[in-house]
Amino acid sequence: MRILGIDPGIADVGFGIVDSKENKQTAVTWGVIRTIAGTSLSSRLDRIFCDLTELISAFSPDVMAVEELFFNTNITTGISVAHGRGVILLAGCRSLIPIKEYTPLQVKLAVTGYGRADKNQVQDMVRRILKMKSAPKPDDAADALAVALCHARSSASLLDLEGVQAPCSTT
Amino acid sequence: MRILGIDPGIADVGFGIVDSKENKQTAVTWGVIRTIAGTSLSSRLDRIFCDLTELISAFSPDVMAVEELFFNTNITTGISVAHGRGVILLAGCRSLIPIKEYTPLQVKLAVTGYGRADKNQVQDMVRRILKMKSAPKPDDAADALAVALCHARSSASLLDLEGVQAPCSTT
Repeated sequence: MRILGIDPGIADVGFGIVDSKENKQTAVTWGVIRTIAGTSLSSRLDRIFCDLTELISAFSPDVMAVEELFFNTNITTGISVAHGRGVILLAGCRSLIPIKEYTPLQVKLAVTGYGRADKNQVQDMVRRILKMKSAPKPDDAADALAVALCHARSSASLLDLEGVQAPCSTT
Repeated sequence: MRILGIDPGIADVGFGIVDSKENKQTAVTWGVIRTIAGTSLSSRLDRIFCDLTELISAFSPDVMAVEELFFNTNITTGISVAHGRGVILLAGCRSLIPIKEYTPLQVKLAVTGYGRADKNQVQDMVRRILKMKSAPKPDDAADALAVALCHARSSASLLDLEGVQAPCSTT
């Protein structure tokens, strides 16, 4: 099973693609979709939608795993990232791949076994699980790989992923 | 000039289309895009994207005016509505129409001349300006007409709207 993990954002959207077979996972590719600061919000959203649609088309993942948002500090940042996350979910839906959502706690638990693990601990476990020489960079890409690993290691990945709803058609 | 006003949401997205000529505005159509509670967030976003794209195609507005979000109470609702608003901005961008954003305060001031006007006062002014026999329903549609009127009455509507950035292409 090929899993596309996403760490949502508006300036940087982290992505990480992992192949999972017989409880072993290998990294296929990872990186960030970067949008240009100072440009309009709608054009940044368009960039995210287009690049993610292309990524899905190029790598044909079986499922997209997207981290849920958790904000206890900056509401303005939260609203902005949620705009991006809406477009990310739309891109998955319109590309006809099943979408699974995981909380930051679920991701930490799945990857490190410890819900209060810090960023460095998560990234180090991502590196170990994927047998990489150094931690994947940038951080948003490493976080996205962690989300993909969370799906690979969760029971959800064993569920039947049939029955994806077809997107509606636009004129 | 034909203006599409949008009151963002995830359950109900209000829309209102207004023609504005020589400082007079008339209502063309209004209503809500309603998504089904209990269905996945991604399919609700897909519904909003598709219906809005169709609406733009059918009525060919010259500009889309979208209300900004203001939340001081429920962060969960705010995050959810922001997902919807991201997809709304994307639909406008991909339909190649200019997008203008207005705060709730700007909308109230433009329509009633009073920044602390309540919902009923705004709706009554919408009805009067558009010479309608009764207030447009549902409320989200009336709010969207108010956003369209805000654009019609603001200096932004006098600016040159050329130079809309072309959306990127998806494979």
